[in-house]
Amino acid sequence: MPLAPADDAFLETLRARLPGDVLRPAEARYLEEPRGRWSGAPTHVALPRSVDEVADIVRACAEARVGIVPYGGGTGLVGGQVMPGGAEAPLLLSLERMNAVRGVWAEENVLVAEAGAILAEVQGAAREAGRLFPLSLASEGSARMGGLLATNAGGVNVLRYGNARDLCLGLEAVLPSGEIWHGLRRLRKDNTGYDLRNLLIGAEGTLGVITAASLRLFPMPAATGTALLVVESPAAALGLLAMARTQMGEAVSAFEIMGRTGWEFLAETLPEVRLPFDDAPEWSVLVEVGLPRGLSPAEALEELFADAFEAGLVSDGLVAQSEAQAAEFWQVRERIPEANRKIGAVSSHDISVPLSAIPDFIPEGMRRLAAVGDFRVNCFGHVGDGNLHYNVFPAPGRSRADHEHQRDEIKRVLHDLVHEMGGSVSAEHGIGRLKVDDLERYQDPAKLNAMRAIKDALDPSGIMNPGAVLRAR
Amino acid sequence: MPLAPADDAFLETLRARLPGDVLRPAEARYLEEPRGRWSGAPTHVALPRSVDEVADIVRACAEARVGIVPYGGGTGLVGGQVMPGGAEAPLLLSLERMNAVRGVWAEENVLVAEAGAILAEVQGAAREAGRLFPLSLASEGSARMGGLLATNAGGVNVLRYGNARDLCLGLEAVLPSGEIWHGLRRLRKDNTGYDLRNLLIGAEGTLGVITAASLRLFPMPAATGTALLVVESPAAALGLLAMARTQMGEAVSAFEIMGRTGWEFLAETLPEVRLPFDDAPEWSVLVEVGLPRGLSPAEALEELFADAFEAGLVSDGLVAQSEAQAAEFWQVRERIPEANRKIGAVSSHDISVPLSAIPDFIPEGMRRLAAVGDFRVNCFGHVGDGNLHYNVFPAPGRSRADHEHQRDEIKRVLHDLVHEMGGSVSAEHGIGRLKVDDLERYQDPAKLNAMRAIKDALDPSGIMNPGAVLRAR
Repeated sequence: MPLAPADDAFLETLRARLPGDVLRPAEARYLEEPRGRWSGAPTHVALPRSVDEVADIVRACAEARVGIVPYGGGTGLVGGQVMPGGAEAPLLLSLERMNAVRGVWAEENVLVAEAGAILAEVQGAAREAGRLFPLSLASEGSARMGGLLATNAGGVNVLRYGNARDLCLGLEAVLPSGEIWHGLRRLRKDNTGYDLRNLLIGAEGTLGVITAASLRLFPMPAATGTALLVVESPAAALGLLAMARTQMGEAVSAFEIMGRTGWEFLAETLPEVRLPFDDAPEWSVLVEVGLPRGLSPAEALEELFADAFEAGLVSDGLVAQSEAQAAEFWQVRERIPEANRKIGAVSSHDISVPLSAIPDFIPEGMRRLAAVGDFRVNCFGHVGDGNLHYNVFPAPGRSRADHEHQRDEIKRVLHDLVHEMGGSVSAEHGIGRLKVDDLERYQDPAKLNAMRAIKDALDPSGIMNPGAVLRAR
Repeated sequence: MPLAPADDAFLETLRARLPGDVLRPAEARYLEEPRGRWSGAPTHVALPRSVDEVADIVRACAEARVGIVPYGGGTGLVGGQVMPGGAEAPLLLSLERMNAVRGVWAEENVLVAEAGAILAEVQGAAREAGRLFPLSLASEGSARMGGLLATNAGGVNVLRYGNARDLCLGLEAVLPSGEIWHGLRRLRKDNTGYDLRNLLIGAEGTLGVITAASLRLFPMPAATGTALLVVESPAAALGLLAMARTQMGEAVSAFEIMGRTGWEFLAETLPEVRLPFDDAPEWSVLVEVGLPRGLSPAEALEELFADAFEAGLVSDGLVAQSEAQAAEFWQVRERIPEANRKIGAVSSHDISVPLSAIPDFIPEGMRRLAAVGDFRVNCFGHVGDGNLHYNVFPAPGRSRADHEHQRDEIKRVLHDLVHEMGGSVSAEHGIGRLKVDDLERYQDPAKLNAMRAIKDALDPSGIMNPGAVLRAR
């Protein structure tokens, strides 16, 4: 049975159940997404102020069989927050007014934030309490906690601190039935029944709406250090990573690889970004460490540099001598996505493979791409996690439009390779609406069947984020 | 519709589908559990050698609607592995023959083990590869990986490395339909659909049978150190923990509290255990740290001791000067459960509360217990995780049998208090069959409804570990 549209009659009913200003026509910004692939059908957005209002909205939608698209900061890259379509226009549900940090328990290393809280503000609230909330990614100034959890966001500190799911102790959420799950526990250990928390995390709003979360904080490392090291190859980068972890254990908090193409794109499109070496290195690695007191990160990184040079893993490098220099190194890494957008990718891939497959994956991907056409590849990312952004660009002088017809083939060629190597076609961005086909093609059939059974059990009418992750039925 | 028994006709059919020696009558050891509360109905046990055989068995049970009780090392403390009953005798499914370590990828920090692998052997395989598999608990010599994951086991290193679920990257499992989920990924990041892995972990065999897992390994800390410190109170213990984490960050790998009663029980029942102080301290803490190279754990612990003494948190203490002395300190902590068994608990409680509630919980629990009767409490455990074993014993001269009639009341009183304080009535042991009533009483109703919906969706006949976690219908 198809869903009903969020039409005038429905909106009228809903308006009667809510305070006056909760419902309004959705401005354009709610109907766009960062890569410009989709635009949402014109509809209304609900802006609740409390979990009870969220529950009222979900119940009304469940009764009327109207679809709901939960909306966080709108930064998702796979279209999970934008539902195209006409006849069945869904209701958007933005959590932006539920943006409080409800509490910080520094002595417990716990913070409770509402779903609409912006990541940078959560980081700041932790910092004020002398603690670290380690989730960190390019969109942290606008991404909101609900969306970050719904998509199990990754970022640059996963190596040490884990993905978003690893940073969450408990949730408050509204289930598709409209029931409120009061699960905001501040416990490290709680083995009382099925792990509903991790089921909602990463479900991209298809099994319920996260309204608040209790989050893990960490002690601030006594001192941090940053180095930019030139490596001969991705294999040498992995050798360097192993050496760093042998020397410093979990203190290695970020380990990011960059290929020459990224540096070239920066030089071409963002000349204000200072590049620390005169010649763009074929491969370079940004290493960040946070050490306990008694150790000097600069000395530890100098020692790593010397040992890795000795071992033939590193040919050149710089250890940041100040916070300003560390920030300069990070600028190189963090502005690559902006340079990419200026160049214009034919196809972008957020993939992971087992760590030991990285050195084979990178050149083999290029070989297979060369059979499709003449492309440039900008390969960069969280190599310490086996997670690469492997983005394909036109050769100089050509535009993405010239290759539009090859996008599906490129995606297929690269994702097939990832799959052959035991990897994932979505390492950190999720499935959204962009990768529904990929999920069907590559996911284990038994898992896919289980996912569909769970979706039908918890959301029998299919109102929660219809068409995201699983095809709408 | 009730389940069918694993009767002769069923066993005949099943035998025809399997190699000759897979099925046999279950010896007594399969029908007992460590606390002696239940004994299983006489039945047969299946001992498959491969995931395909497991799938054959599950399919046969699904077709005939025969219950399956998955069996690991038999060390569970809540009766998840023992199904009492007569008419509907289930089939036991022991994974003990699937005990291989399928592979170790040291450079990836990954190990793949089958469900029947014993924890100590997995630890050993990691150690041989120069890596650490940090899951560690009293029963590690007999507990098997499948059971450890199915119950999301905890232990002494959760503070630093997390629970069993945090150590698992992927699973191979047979779902209640008999489908095999091939999910043995070696990836740190994989956002492709619902988190079936975490749903099976902690489901105690009620949603499927785990047959193998890919597990996270860690670099070995360059050096470890151990101290036994006398603290004035549980509040002082938490102050010491905060100080330790400020000084050493995540390097604090274990932080165990012991009350005077535990030491008294050791002196009374296990005189061969050497107690490092002449007078049993009211409260003491066992601290273990693993530091990166360049730091001396002994020096770091001496410094912590001095600072904590200065701050009035610690009144006495010993920093181990050798591995032998560290082992001696650990003996005190690890043999408390054995001493408990010799004394004979009226009621044992594996609870957690938010860290900041610990100092109130311990005395308030004693106050409420005193209203029930005259008891001794042995309170010890993983205080760094907010997880206490709060075990209630008869006063000297009385036996557990004298208080049998008060067991339910004691449990109710303590669990009500835990619940009031936002805690969990099963921190690390799970629900099994022992705590099904507690789950119904204390769990959030929305979560409980979601759990039942998931169970019905994935296991519509209810064959998987019937009556564990959720009441059989």
